[in-house]
Amino acid sequence: MKILPDTKSDFRNVTIYEGALIGENVKIGEGTIIYPDVEVQPDTHIGPYCILGEPTALYYKNPQKHNFKKTVIGKNSIIRSNTIIYEDVIIGNNFETGHRATIREGTKIGINCRIGTLCDLQGKLVIGNYVNLHSNVHIGQLSTIEDFVWIYPYVVLTNDPRPPMGKLKGVRVKKYAQIATHATILPGVEIGENALVGASTIVRENVRAERVVVGNPGKDICSVRDICDEVGNPVYPWKDYLKDYRGYPWQEK
Amino acid sequence: MKILPDTKSDFRNVTIYEGALIGENVKIGEGTIIYPDVEVQPDTHIGPYCILGEPTALYYKNPQKHNFKKTVIGKNSIIRSNTIIYEDVIIGNNFETGHRATIREGTKIGINCRIGTLCDLQGKLVIGNYVNLHSNVHIGQLSTIEDFVWIYPYVVLTNDPRPPMGKLKGVRVKKYAQIATHATILPGVEIGENALVGASTIVRENVRAERVVVGNPGKDICSVRDICDEVGNPVYPWKDYLKDYRGYPWQEK
Amino acid sequence: MKILPDTKSDFRNVTIYEGALIGENVKIGEGTIIYPDVEVQPDTHIGPYCILGEPTALYYKNPQKHNFKKTVIGKNSIIRSNTIIYEDVIIGNNFETGHRATIREGTKIGINCRIGTLCDLQGKLVIGNYVNLHSNVHIGQLSTIEDFVWIYPYVVLTNDPRPPMGKLKGVRVKKYAQIATHATILPGVEIGENALVGASTIVRENVRAERVVVGNPGKDICSVRDICDEVGNPVYPWKDYLKDYRGYPWQEK
Repeated sequence: MKILPDTKSDFRNVTIYEGALIGENVKIGEGTIIYPDVEVQPDTHIGPYCILGEPTALYYKNPQKHNFKKTVIGKNSIIRSNTIIYEDVIIGNNFETGHRATIREGTKIGINCRIGTLCDLQGKLVIGNYVNLHSNVHIGQLSTIEDFVWIYPYVVLTNDPRPPMGKLKGVRVKKYAQIATHATILPGVEIGENALVGASTIVRENVRAERVVVGNPGKDICSVRDICDEVGNPVYPWKDYLKDYRGYPWQEK
Repeated sequence: MKILPDTKSDFRNVTIYEGALIGENVKIGEGTIIYPDVEVQPDTHIGPYCILGEPTALYYKNPQKHNFKKTVIGKNSIIRSNTIIYEDVIIGNNFETGHRATIREGTKIGINCRIGTLCDLQGKLVIGNYVNLHSNVHIGQLSTIEDFVWIYPYVVLTNDPRPPMGKLKGVRVKKYAQIATHATILPGVEIGENALVGASTIVRENVRAERVVVGNPGKDICSVRDICDEVGNPVYPWKDYLKDYRGYPWQEK
Repeated sequence: MKILPDTKSDFRNVTIYEGALIGENVKIGEGTIIYPDVEVQPDTHIGPYCILGEPTALYYKNPQKHNFKKTVIGKNSIIRSNTIIYEDVIIGNNFETGHRATIREGTKIGINCRIGTLCDLQGKLVIGNYVNLHSNVHIGQLSTIEDFVWIYPYVVLTNDPRPPMGKLKGVRVKKYAQIATHATILPGVEIGENALVGASTIVRENVRAERVVVGNPGKDICSVRDICDEVGNPVYPWKDYLKDYRGYPWQEK
């Protein structure tokens, strides 16, 4: 692999391998490494000490002969410092990461997603549009996260029903669902549309749409429509309640 | 912004922007980035690959016109490698971080505090003196942590009662309280002085001073004074029991 | 300390202090720092922005007079980017880390171990052979982990029975045991051979060999031999059930 000269970046010590495509008006922070076959689309800001196109384990057996797979970072994105995105990851426009996020190979991410600080996405994932992972969310391989989902810190989506066997079954989180901090979702479980999983809940069975599950073990305690604000209006489905402008496609600015 | 020449540091590839104030006898590790309007007070040791004065999200819209707010790191501090401290953070003397700590904007931290490896402080926080956060503590915005508090790994102080609404209510942790590993504190809760929250506890309601709360959901099970050592002496309040010298103001060396 | 010239590495901005021993066919990524008295054995691949031989806290009092202790990274290892390994750590051959792992001083690790992304090993540990820590495992000081153990994300092995007293009692995890995600093991507890600790379990008492413990608080619910696959064969002990080749010494390729 050949390293391109530093003149591709305003900053110092950036390493860009030949074959990488850097769009117009892309900024790249100090010390960032961009492997071959990475495409950074225009108007994207990459922070310092990021690694884009990080190779999979096979690379370490024979670095010179490694066949890199394509990685794309969409337009108008912000990749904060120390983020690592593997090869074979395709990400849509207006993407944003916190610091030190890790996104492994075989992952597709839609538009307008945010992956927070210290998130650890283990790869082979399908993530929809407008998905928001707060800090330090751990997503096991083979999970699917649909549009408009929010997941909070230290949530784990697991995938091995009988560890360490490795016969993996991913989790599916359906549209608009909310999974609160420290919840654990067991392998193969489906979280229904607009469902709400409470903090520190362990979810062993599918959660139906619009249900609230809390506890260890998790129990279905009510409908999300039973949760009201101070004046008695139901808060969920949150799509209908949300008043602040957040850039969702159903909102007018 | 103008980058100062490398001669301000003994190490290589340090980036210091014009306007930063670096005190006497400050050491700065390889690759560290210091933005304008950061003041590093004397005798402080900054490890490699740190970022001090990291700009808030507005910066990414218009980097050239960003108006950085002041950040201060107190005297005689140790900032370990890969720590990120945002702009608009004021930290007192004798501060210490582990590796990869993140401290976001709008945060005030008193003297003699320690923020461990992988801690994620979300900003808009008030942290007192002699506060000790072990590794990987997540503090949501608007929390207040008083003097002499200890918080252990994977504890989360949450702040959104009806996610993802964003009408935030911070947690308050009062003096000398101990919050054990994996505990979750729900929004707006107050943890009383000298209280003890057990491991993996989920705290939904205020905890009174000197009470012990454990379980999911958390239950008040006894007074901290009921916890005794091998010879029957009460261990808490720990301030009165602690024999080893730890540098607390009430201790004589 | 004297820094060796960059010609010891194919990559840029590597800092190797005089006294470090770099074996044949070792690769070292951009910006990695290797302190004195670190031995990297042959055929090992060190990713970018790693720190090997990181000094303990005493160093910060008097860097020039610090007496570094020996650290060894075994042959044929892969140390992924941003990993930090302290001084006084001895690691066997075929070692592998994920990204951003931290391994503190006074730790011995056997052969063929894997320490995942974001793991935080607090030091003074004894880790056997073929141990596999998934992402983001937190191991408190004085723990012992025997051969063939697997531990999953956000598990914490604690060590302080009466925080913040610091009279530490480590955890012992015996051969072949499995500890699922988000489990917390209290100080001084022993997890028996082939035992299985369920997700989000809090373990307050010793777990006998081949038992399954789940819940908060953890309860012994059955033998591991009661867990069967789709056709009624017992899955555990997993050593006897595992069919895929994983490189274990009892397997033939």
